[in-house]
Amino acid sequence: MAEQKTVTEQKVVNGVNVSMIEDTVNAIKDDNEIAKCKFHISNRWIDGGHNQSTIKSFYGAKKENPHDKPFFLDADEPPLLAGGDFGANPVEHLLNALAGCLTTTMVYHAAIRGIKLEEVESELEGDIDLRGFLGLTNEVRNGYQNIRVNFKVKTDAENLERLKALSKLSPVFDVASHGTNIDITMERK
Amino acid sequence: MAEQKTVTEQKVVNGVNVSMIEDTVNAIKDDNEIAKCKFHISNRWIDGGHNQSTIKSFYGAKKENPHDKPFFLDADEPPLLAGGDFGANPVEHLLNALAGCLTTTMVYHAAIRGIKLEEVESELEGDIDLRGFLGLTNEVRNGYQNIRVNFKVKTDAENLERLKALSKLSPVFDVASHGTNIDITMERK
Repeated sequence: MAEQKTVTEQKVVNGVNVSMIEDTVNAIKDDNEIAKCKFHISNRWIDGGHNQSTIKSFYGAKKENPHDKPFFLDADEPPLLAGGDFGANPVEHLLNALAGCLTTTMVYHAAIRGIKLEEVESELEGDIDLRGFLGLTNEVRNGYQNIRVNFKVKTDAENLERLKALSKLSPVFDVASHGTNIDITMERK
Repeated sequence: MAEQKTVTEQKVVNGVNVSMIEDTVNAIKDDNEIAKCKFHISNRWIDGGHNQSTIKSFYGAKKENPHDKPFFLDADEPPLLAGGDFGANPVEHLLNALAGCLTTTMVYHAAIRGIKLEEVESELEGDIDLRGFLGLTNEVRNGYQNIRVNFKVKTDAENLERLKALSKLSPVFDVASHGTNIDITMERK
């Protein structure tokens, strides 16, 4: 259609609309408030180790932005950990969040710099000693003692070190490696 | 059937098989190796902000334990963040991991102590300033600056403070509030 020919050509690298990101960066330079986001979810306990989160929208660019449709995410424990296995367990969900964020951060920042990626795969593994969670010793922590991430990327060899550095710009990597402030309130329903 | 009558009666609180957890604790006291778990996932980039994790099994009790079926978790960015909205985004997945872990930890530890819960709901919200991720300033971090968790629990009023303390035994809370060691390697595919 004739109208479409008047649209400015979009620069797309790694499936990422780089022109859109550049526009966003310019808009933020004019008004910092655009960059301030609030992500939020709700969660409901179902039974035993099973609970479900609902994700409907997020705040950013000075307004609430609905997702196309709500996302529902189930967590449960496997039978060995006294659950019904209706979903990945929370520490597996954490590895998923980390994998997704490292990958997206690498793909986006590579796109912005014109670094083309053909394939990205990763394996993540973390060590937990259940004696911490169960209160059997103070010698081990409750959470992951270590997390190992191994990426395999189909790209030019000279990009690898730079991609590793770019992946570490990930917001979830920041929280999971440095921690953040978490306030918990509890009221009666 | 007659055989079933010979099975020892199981103590179940909040849908959690407390007898099984007590058996696990006793087994760990005899052999610490049982407590050592390795959780692992694989992730594959699809396009742009879209990637998918697969979770098939975990190591614990000195063996690999398959889930009943593999779990597939999609991450993507919403259109405002240059994605196709095929899944919750990674920082929303992090909130889901935290919500699920705080909830399960509270439910399990309450069950072990005989504290009965009828309903548990939570709302989680976290603040991210995109100027960090985009490299526009060093004044803000890339990840969540703060995360707020509000629980509503249907239980006896005198349980609330104790439940809040129990929730903080959560492994994901530990990692997200204190951080952990994350090693990243990158090789060419």
